[in-house]
Amino acid sequence: MKREEYEKIRARALEYFEKANIILTEEEKDKIEVADFGLGKVEETGLQLVTYVNTDVVCAKELVLFPYQTCPEHKHPKRSFDDGKEETFRCRYGTVRLFVEGAETENRSANPPAGDEDYYTVFHQVTLRPGEQYTIYPNTLHWFQAGEEGAVVSEFSTRSTDEEDIFTDTRIRRIPEVE
Amino acid sequence: MKREEYEKIRARALEYFEKANIILTEEEKDKIEVADFGLGKVEETGLQLVTYVNTDVVCAKELVLFPYQTCPEHKHPKRSFDDGKEETFRCRYGTVRLFVEGAETENRSANPPAGDEDYYTVFHQVTLRPGEQYTIYPNTLHWFQAGEEGAVVSEFSTRSTDEEDIFTDTRIRRIPEVE
Ligand SMILES: [Zn+2]
Ligand SMILES: [Zn+2]
Repeated sequence: MKREEYEKIRARALEYFEKANIILTEEEKDKIEVADFGLGKVEETGLQLVTYVNTDVVCAKELVLFPYQTCPEHKHPKRSFDDGKEETFRCRYGTVRLFVEGAETENRSANPPAGDEDYYTVFHQVTLRPGEQYTIYPNTLHWFQAGEEGAVVSEFSTRSTDEEDIFTDTRIRRIPEVE
Repeated sequence: MKREEYEKIRARALEYFEKANIILTEEEKDKIEVADFGLGKVEETGLQLVTYVNTDVVCAKELVLFPYQTCPEHKHPKRSFDDGKEETFRCRYGTVRLFVEGAETENRSANPPAGDEDYYTVFHQVTLRPGEQYTIYPNTLHWFQAGEEGAVVSEFSTRSTDEEDIFTDTRIRRIPEVE
Protein backbone atom coordinates (compact mmCIF):
# COMPACT_ATOMS: atom_id res chain seq x y z
CA MET A 1 0.00 0.00 0.00
CA LYS A 2 1.21 3.46 -0.85
CA ARG A 3 1.82 5.91 1.99
CA GLU A 4 -0.79 8.30 0.59
CA GLU A 5 -3.50 5.64 0.56
CA TYR A 6 -2.50 4.51 4.05
CA GLU A 7 -2.92 8.05 5.37
CA LYS A 8 -6.35 8.39 3.78
CA ILE A 9 -7.57 5.11 5.30
CA ARG A 10 -6.04 5.98 8.67
CA ALA A 11 -7.89 9.32 8.77
CA ARG A 12 -11.14 7.62 7.88
CA ALA A 13 -10.65 5.02 10.63
CA LEU A 14 -10.18 7.81 13.18
CA GLU A 15 -13.64 9.12 12.30
CA TYR A 16 -15.13 5.76 13.27
CA PHE A 17 -13.26 5.66 16.58
CA GLU A 18 -14.80 9.08 17.27
CA LYS A 19 -18.29 7.88 16.39
CA ALA A 20 -17.81 5.02 18.86
CA ASN A 21 -16.40 7.37 21.55
CA ILE A 22 -13.21 5.32 21.74
CA ILE A 23 -10.40 7.44 23.17
CA LEU A 24 -6.93 6.72 21.78
CA THR A 25 -3.58 8.24 22.66
CA GLU A 26 -1.82 10.33 19.98
CA GLU A 27 0.73 7.53 19.63
CA GLU A 28 -2.03 4.99 18.98
CA LYS A 29 -3.66 7.29 16.43
CA ASP A 30 -0.34 7.62 14.61
CA LYS A 31 0.17 3.88 14.22
CA ILE A 32 -3.27 2.60 13.25
CA GLU A 33 -2.73 -0.61 11.34
CA VAL A 34 -4.38 -0.98 7.96
CA ALA A 35 -4.63 -4.59 6.77
CA ASP A 36 -5.30 -4.93 3.05
CA PHE A 37 -4.59 -8.68 3.09
CA GLY A 38 -2.48 -8.22 -0.04
CA LEU A 39 -5.57 -8.11 -2.25
CA GLY A 40 -5.22 -4.46 -3.28
CA LYS A 41 -8.84 -3.46 -2.58
CA VAL A 42 -8.67 -2.46 1.05
CA GLU A 43 -12.00 -0.64 1.24
CA GLU A 44 -13.73 -3.85 0.15
CA THR A 45 -11.55 -6.48 1.81
CA GLY A 46 -9.63 -4.96 4.67
CA LEU A 47 -9.54 -3.98 8.31
CA GLN A 48 -8.25 -1.09 10.40
CA LEU A 49 -7.02 -1.78 13.90
CA VAL A 50 -5.28 -0.58 17.02
CA THR A 51 -3.57 -3.17 19.22
CA TYR A 52 -3.78 -2.01 22.82
CA VAL A 53 -1.78 -4.84 24.28
CA ASN A 54 -0.34 -8.15 23.10
CA THR A 55 1.59 -10.03 25.76
CA ASP A 56 2.53 -13.72 25.87
CA VAL A 57 -0.98 -14.52 27.10
CA VAL A 58 -3.49 -11.72 26.39
CA CYS A 59 -4.28 -9.43 23.48
CA ALA A 60 -6.82 -6.60 23.16
CA LYS A 61 -7.50 -4.76 19.92
CA GLU A 62 -10.02 -2.24 18.64
CA LEU A 63 -11.16 -2.89 15.05
CA VAL A 64 -12.78 -0.54 12.54
CA LEU A 65 -14.70 -1.78 9.52
CA PHE A 66 -15.97 0.69 6.93
CA PRO A 67 -19.49 0.17 5.53
CA TYR A 68 -19.66 -3.31 3.94
CA GLN A 69 -15.90 -3.84 4.39
CA THR A 70 -15.04 -7.52 4.89
CA CYS A 71 -12.45 -9.27 7.02
CA PRO A 72 -11.84 -12.42 4.97
CA GLU A 73 -12.43 -16.00 6.11
CA HIS A 74 -9.71 -17.49 8.30
CA LYS A 75 -9.00 -19.64 11.32
CA HIS A 76 -6.44 -19.69 14.12
CA PRO A 77 -4.66 -23.05 14.19
CA LYS A 78 -2.84 -24.85 17.01
CA ARG A 79 0.43 -23.13 17.91
CA SER A 80 3.60 -24.25 19.63
CA PHE A 81 2.30 -22.77 22.90
CA ASP A 82 -1.47 -23.38 22.79
CA ASP A 83 -4.42 -24.83 20.85
CA GLY A 84 -4.80 -21.65 18.79
CA LYS A 85 -5.96 -18.10 19.32
CA GLU A 86 -9.37 -17.62 21.00
CA GLU A 87 -11.18 -14.38 20.15
CA THR A 88 -14.21 -12.58 21.57
CA PHE A 89 -15.67 -9.82 19.40
CA ARG A 90 -17.77 -7.17 21.12
CA CYS A 91 -19.57 -4.64 18.92
CA ARG A 92 -19.24 -1.02 20.09
CA TYR A 93 -20.72 0.86 17.13
CA GLY A 94 -22.68 -0.03 13.99
CA THR A 95 -23.49 -3.58 13.01
CA VAL A 96 -21.21 -6.50 12.24
CA ARG A 97 -22.32 -9.65 10.49
CA LEU A 98 -20.13 -12.46 11.70
CA PHE A 99 -20.10 -15.80 9.88
CA VAL A 100 -19.05 -18.97 11.63
CA GLU A 101 -19.16 -22.72 11.10
CA GLY A 102 -22.64 -24.25 11.38
CA ALA A 103 -25.89 -24.47 9.46
CA GLU A 104 -26.07 -21.91 6.66
CA THR A 105 -28.37 -19.02 7.60
CA GLU A 106 -31.27 -18.54 5.21
CA ASN A 107 -31.62 -15.05 3.80
CA ARG A 108 -28.31 -13.97 5.29
CA SER A 109 -27.69 -10.23 5.21
CA ALA A 110 -24.15 -10.22 3.81
CA ASN A 111 -22.34 -11.84 0.91
CA PRO A 112 -18.64 -12.39 0.24
CA PRO A 113 -16.94 -9.70 -1.86
CA ALA A 114 -17.95 -10.09 -5.51
CA GLY A 115 -15.56 -12.36 -7.39
CA ASP A 116 -14.17 -13.93 -4.19
CA GLU A 117 -17.05 -16.33 -3.50
CA ASP A 118 -14.78 -19.37 -3.88
CA TYR A 119 -12.83 -18.33 -0.81
CA TYR A 120 -15.79 -18.22 1.59
CA THR A 121 -17.16 -21.50 2.93
CA VAL A 122 -18.97 -20.80 6.26
CA PHE A 123 -22.33 -19.04 6.29
CA HIS A 124 -23.87 -19.34 9.74
CA GLN A 125 -24.64 -15.69 10.56
CA VAL A 126 -24.36 -14.04 13.97
CA THR A 127 -25.36 -10.38 13.94
CA LEU A 128 -23.73 -8.15 16.54
CA ARG A 129 -25.07 -4.72 17.48
CA PRO A 130 -23.55 -2.41 20.11
CA GLY A 131 -23.12 -4.26 23.41
CA GLU A 132 -23.40 -7.69 21.78
CA GLN A 133 -20.52 -10.14 21.53
CA TYR A 134 -19.50 -13.60 20.37
CA THR A 135 -16.56 -15.89 21.14
CA ILE A 136 -14.64 -17.75 18.42
CA TYR A 137 -12.82 -20.81 19.73
CA PRO A 138 -9.51 -21.99 18.20
CA ASN A 139 -9.27 -23.57 14.78
CA THR A 140 -12.80 -22.63 13.64
CA LEU A 141 -13.43 -20.72 10.41
CA HIS A 142 -14.93 -17.22 10.56
CA TRP A 143 -15.27 -14.01 8.56
CA PHE A 144 -17.17 -10.79 9.11
CA GLN A 145 -18.54 -7.77 7.31
CA ALA A 146 -19.88 -4.44 8.57
CA GLY A 147 -23.36 -3.17 7.80
CA GLU A 148 -24.19 0.15 6.18
CA GLU A 149 -22.91 2.29 9.09
CA GLY A 150 -19.58 0.48 9.34
CA ALA A 151 -18.59 -0.97 12.72
CA VAL A 152 -16.23 -0.62 15.63
CA VAL A 153 -15.49 -3.89 17.41
CA SER A 154 -13.40 -4.69 20.48
CA GLU A 155 -11.44 -7.93 20.30
CA PHE A 156 -10.39 -9.70 23.51
CA SER A 157 -8.12 -12.68 22.81
CA THR A 158 -5.17 -14.81 23.68
CA ARG A 159 -1.78 -13.82 22.20
CA SER A 160 -2.08 -12.58 18.64
CA THR A 161 0.25 -14.07 16.04
CA ASP A 162 -1.28 -12.79 12.81
CA GLU A 163 1.37 -14.50 10.71
CA GLU A 164 0.03 -17.90 11.80
CA ASP A 165 -3.59 -17.24 10.74
CA ILE A 166 -4.81 -19.51 7.95
CA PHE A 167 -6.92 -17.81 5.28
CA THR A 168 -9.21 -19.75 2.97
CA ASP A 169 -8.08 -17.42 0.17
CA THR A 170 -4.52 -18.55 -0.46
CA ARG A 171 -3.73 -15.33 -2.32
CA ILE A 172 -3.89 -13.46 0.99
CA ARG A 173 -0.81 -12.01 2.63
CA ARG A 174 -1.73 -10.94 6.18
CA ILE A 175 1.32 -8.87 7.04
CA PRO A 176 0.91 -5.52 5.26
CA GLU A 177 3.61 -3.51 3.59
CA VAL A 178 3.46 0.25 3.35
CA GLU A 179 5.72 1.47 0.55
CA MET B 1 -24.96 -6.03 51.37
CA LYS B 2 -28.68 -5.37 51.51
CA ARG B 3 -30.65 -5.53 48.26
CA GLU B 4 -31.66 -1.86 48.61
CA GLU B 5 -28.05 -0.69 48.90
CA TYR B 6 -27.04 -2.92 46.00
CA GLU B 7 -29.70 -1.32 43.80
CA LYS B 8 -28.55 2.17 44.73
CA ILE B 9 -24.91 1.40 43.91
CA ARG B 10 -25.90 -0.36 40.70
CA ALA B 11 -27.89 2.66 39.49
CA ARG B 12 -24.97 4.95 40.28
CA ALA B 13 -22.56 2.69 38.36
CA LEU B 14 -24.81 2.88 35.31
CA GLU B 15 -24.40 6.66 35.32
CA TYR B 16 -20.63 6.22 34.99
CA PHE B 17 -20.95 3.74 32.13
CA GLU B 18 -23.05 6.40 30.40
CA LYS B 19 -20.46 9.10 31.00
CA ALA B 20 -17.86 6.81 29.42
CA ASN B 21 -20.16 5.97 26.48
CA ILE B 22 -19.92 2.26 27.27
CA ILE B 23 -22.89 0.43 25.79
CA LEU B 24 -24.17 -2.55 27.81
CA THR B 25 -26.97 -4.97 27.09
CA GLU B 26 -30.01 -4.90 29.41
CA GLU B 27 -28.89 -8.24 30.82
CA GLU B 28 -25.45 -6.83 31.66
CA LYS B 29 -27.03 -3.77 33.29
CA ASP B 30 -29.20 -6.03 35.44
CA LYS B 31 -26.28 -8.03 36.82
CA ILE B 32 -23.65 -5.39 37.55
CA GLU B 33 -21.42 -6.80 40.26
CA VAL B 34 -20.80 -4.69 43.35
CA ALA B 35 -17.75 -5.78 45.33
CA ASP B 36 -17.67 -4.43 48.88
CA PHE B 37 -14.79 -6.70 49.88
CA GLY B 38 -16.67 -7.55 53.06
CA LEU B 39 -15.60 -4.28 54.71
CA GLY B 40 -19.06 -2.73 54.84
CA LYS B 41 -18.07 0.67 53.38
CA VAL B 42 -18.47 0.06 49.68
CA GLU B 43 -18.40 3.69 48.57
CA GLU B 44 -14.96 4.04 50.14
CA THR B 45 -13.49 0.56 49.52
CA GLY B 46 -15.32 -1.11 46.69
CA LEU B 47 -15.67 -1.67 42.99
CA GLN B 48 -18.48 -2.03 40.46
CA LEU B 49 -17.96 -4.26 37.46
CA VAL B 50 -19.36 -6.01 34.43
CA THR B 51 -17.64 -9.16 33.22
CA TYR B 52 -18.01 -9.35 29.46
CA VAL B 53 -16.33 -12.71 29.05
CA ASN B 54 -14.35 -15.12 31.23
CA THR B 55 -13.27 -18.28 29.43
CA ASP B 56 -10.53 -20.75 30.37
CA VAL B 57 -7.95 -18.37 28.88
CA VAL B 58 -9.25 -14.80 28.49
CA CYS B 59 -11.28 -12.39 30.60
CA ALA B 60 -12.52 -8.87 29.83
CA LYS B 61 -14.26 -6.65 32.37
CA GLU B 62 -15.40 -3.06 32.60
CA LEU B 63 -14.83 -1.47 36.02
CA VAL B 64 -16.43 1.60 37.59
CA LEU B 65 -14.90 3.45 40.51
CA PHE B 66 -16.78 6.28 42.19
CA PRO B 67 -14.83 9.42 43.14
CA TYR B 68 -11.99 8.44 45.49
CA GLN B 69 -13.28 4.86 45.75
CA THR B 70 -10.46 2.35 46.32
CA CYS B 71 -9.88 -1.19 45.08
CA PRO B 72 -7.77 -2.58 47.92
CA GLU B 73 -4.22 -3.96 47.64
CA HIS B 74 -3.94 -7.50 46.32
CA LYS B 75 -2.00 -9.82 44.07
CA HIS B 76 -2.78 -12.73 41.76
CA PRO B 77 -0.73 -15.80 42.80
CA LYS B 78 0.35 -18.85 40.82
CA ARG B 79 -2.60 -21.13 40.02
CA SER B 80 -2.91 -24.79 39.12
CA PHE B 81 -3.05 -23.84 35.43
CA ASP B 82 -0.72 -20.81 35.13
CA ASP B 83 1.66 -18.43 36.90
CA GLY B 84 -1.20 -16.18 38.05
CA LYS B 85 -3.62 -13.74 36.48
CA GLU B 86 -2.14 -11.02 34.25
CA GLU B 87 -4.15 -7.78 33.99
CA THR B 88 -4.03 -4.75 31.73
CA PHE B 89 -6.00 -1.72 32.91
CA ARG B 90 -7.03 0.84 30.28
CA CYS B 91 -8.66 4.05 31.50
CA ARG B 92 -11.78 5.06 29.54
CA TYR B 93 -13.12 7.91 31.68
CA GLY B 94 -11.85 10.00 34.61
CA THR B 95 -8.55 9.35 36.31
CA VAL B 96 -7.25 6.31 38.11
CA ARG B 97 -4.25 6.30 40.40
CA LEU B 98 -2.72 2.85 40.27
CA PHE B 99 -0.14 1.81 42.84
CA VAL B 100 2.36 -0.94 42.10
CA GLU B 101 5.57 -2.37 43.52
CA GLY B 102 8.61 -0.12 43.10
CA ALA B 103 10.10 3.07 44.52
CA GLU B 104 7.56 5.04 46.54
CA THR B 105 6.32 8.06 44.59
CA GLU B 106 6.97 11.38 46.32
CA ASN B 107 3.92 13.57 46.75
CA ARG B 108 1.60 10.83 45.56
CA SER B 109 -1.93 11.99 44.80
CA ALA B 110 -3.87 9.30 46.65
CA ASN B 111 -3.78 7.73 50.10
CA PRO B 112 -5.20 4.47 51.43
CA PRO B 113 -8.66 4.70 53.03
CA ALA B 114 -8.37 6.30 56.48
CA GLY B 115 -7.83 3.73 59.19
CA ASP B 116 -6.69 1.03 56.74
CA GLU B 117 -3.12 2.27 56.23
CA ASP B 118 -1.65 -0.94 57.69
CA TYR B 119 -3.04 -2.92 54.77
CA TYR B 120 -1.35 -0.92 52.02
CA THR B 121 2.34 -1.52 51.33
CA VAL B 122 3.11 -0.48 47.71
CA PHE B 123 3.22 3.18 46.73
CA HIS B 124 4.73 3.52 43.28
CA GLN B 125 2.09 5.61 41.49
CA VAL B 126 1.03 5.25 37.83
CA THR B 127 -1.65 7.74 36.82
CA LEU B 128 -3.97 6.67 34.02
CA ARG B 129 -6.14 9.11 32.09
CA PRO B 130 -8.49 8.17 29.21
CA GLY B 131 -6.60 6.15 26.58
CA GLU B 132 -3.75 5.29 28.95
CA GLN B 133 -3.07 1.79 30.21
CA TYR B 134 -0.75 -0.34 32.34
CA THR B 135 -0.09 -4.08 32.61
CA ILE B 136 0.18 -5.88 35.97
CA TYR B 137 2.12 -9.13 35.75
CA PRO B 138 1.30 -12.13 37.98
CA ASN B 139 2.04 -12.18 41.67
CA THR B 140 2.77 -8.44 42.02
CA LEU B 141 0.95 -6.26 44.53
CA HIS B 142 -1.31 -3.44 43.32
CA TRP B 143 -4.22 -1.23 44.37
CA PHE B 144 -5.99 1.69 42.78
CA GLN B 145 -8.18 4.66 43.53
CA ALA B 146 -10.22 6.97 41.31
CA GLY B 147 -9.74 10.74 41.21
CA GLU B 148 -12.44 13.32 41.82
CA GLU B 149 -14.47 12.44 38.70
CA GLY B 150 -14.51 8.71 39.39
CA ALA B 151 -13.22 6.36 36.68
CA VAL B 152 -14.24 3.76 34.15
CA VAL B 153 -11.52 1.23 33.37
CA SER B 154 -11.38 -1.68 30.94
CA GLU B 155 -9.56 -4.76 32.20
CA PHE B 156 -8.07 -7.25 29.73
CA SER B 157 -6.71 -10.34 31.46
CA THR B 158 -6.18 -14.06 31.60
CA ARG B 159 -8.89 -16.16 33.27
CA SER B 160 -10.35 -14.47 36.34
CA THR B 161 -10.58 -16.51 39.53
CA ASP B 162 -11.43 -13.81 42.07
CA GLU B 163 -11.57 -16.31 44.91
CA GLU B 164 -7.81 -16.95 44.53
CA ASP B 165 -6.77 -13.27 44.84
CA ILE B 166 -4.63 -12.54 47.88
CA PHE B 167 -5.47 -9.29 49.70
CA THR B 168 -3.02 -7.60 52.05
CA ASP B 169 -5.99 -6.85 54.32
CA THR B 170 -6.84 -10.28 55.72
CA ARG B 171 -10.29 -9.06 56.83
CA ILE B 172 -11.31 -8.91 53.16
CA ARG B 173 -13.81 -11.35 51.69
CA ARG B 174 -13.78 -10.96 47.92
CA ILE B 175 -16.91 -12.88 47.03
CA PRO B 176 -19.86 -10.60 47.83
CA GLU B 177 -23.17 -11.61 49.35
CA VAL B 178 -26.36 -9.72 48.61
CA GLU B 179 -28.92 -10.45 51.34
ZN1 LIG C 1 -9.96 -14.36 13.76
ZN1 LIG D 1 -5.72 -7.25 40.28
